[in-house]
Amino acid sequence: MRIYFSCSITGGRGDQPAYAALVAHLQAAGHRVLTAHLASPDLQGQEGGLEPEAVYDRDTAWVREADAVVAEVSTPSHGVGFEVAYALHRAKPVLCLHRRGARVSRMITGCREPGMACAEYGTEAEMLALADAFLAGGASRP
Amino acid sequence: MRIYFSCSITGGRGDQPAYAALVAHLQAAGHRVLTAHLASPDLQGQEGGLEPEAVYDRDTAWVREADAVVAEVSTPSHGVGFEVAYALHRAKPVLCLHRRGARVSRMITGCREPGMACAEYGTEAEMLALADAFLAGGASRP
Repeated sequence: MRIYFSCSITGGRGDQPAYAALVAHLQAAGHRVLTAHLASPDLQGQEGGLEPEAVYDRDTAWVREADAVVAEVSTPSHGVGFEVAYALHRAKPVLCLHRRGARVSRMITGCREPGMACAEYGTEAEMLALADAFLAGGASRP
Repeated sequence: MRIYFSCSITGGRGDQPAYAALVAHLQAAGHRVLTAHLASPDLQGQEGGLEPEAVYDRDTAWVREADAVVAEVSTPSHGVGFEVAYALHRAKPVLCLHRRGARVSRMITGCREPGMACAEYGTEAEMLALADAFLAGGASRP
């Protein structure tokens, strides 16, 4: 599947190791992660020079191209929240994953739109298993 | 006008004094701020017991009821990002205001959707003037 992976960039990179583990796992399972670069520890170096409008146009095009969105929502982010709503309005299945104990907006955890799923994980293995289950089942029922 | 005021809740309340000044100003100008309680310094006390789904249903209903959305985006927030996209898809004019120097997602600053406006302010007086100008002019042209 073509997957839009969504994570905090400007909001904070404290969960970057989880982003990297998730993207590597999805790629190893044969999925095409359109935004794999977002998991890089050197993301600011790669993207720092891009104009905001160029980032917006590129990222929204990728959301429209994707079969599903997998978002890590432990760190607050305007961009991730925007992308989740943008994807749901285009009938894309969306999975929002967060660390157990992370404080996550109720606009995410309480979201009732068709295609939306939200789950918490304790360990990295649990996070990867949740993504697998979503892509094997829930993501095919937007 | 009926205004949905959007600000960080779970993501952090460091900009709450700016939220309070903005909501008080909009109300003094005769606008009906559907979410005026979000600017309260005691918000967690008022809203802490609500179920996520109840918050989601109530807040999205208010976005649909509003004539315009005014968001303060200096503090990263999934909820605000979600609400901005949700409102734009319903052809609501949206103004995103942020402190000069705040690091704001390029999905907000680069957003090209019709009805979207984004502006930075240095002083509280500048913030209020930007909101006035938006509601007097831009907000009537979604």
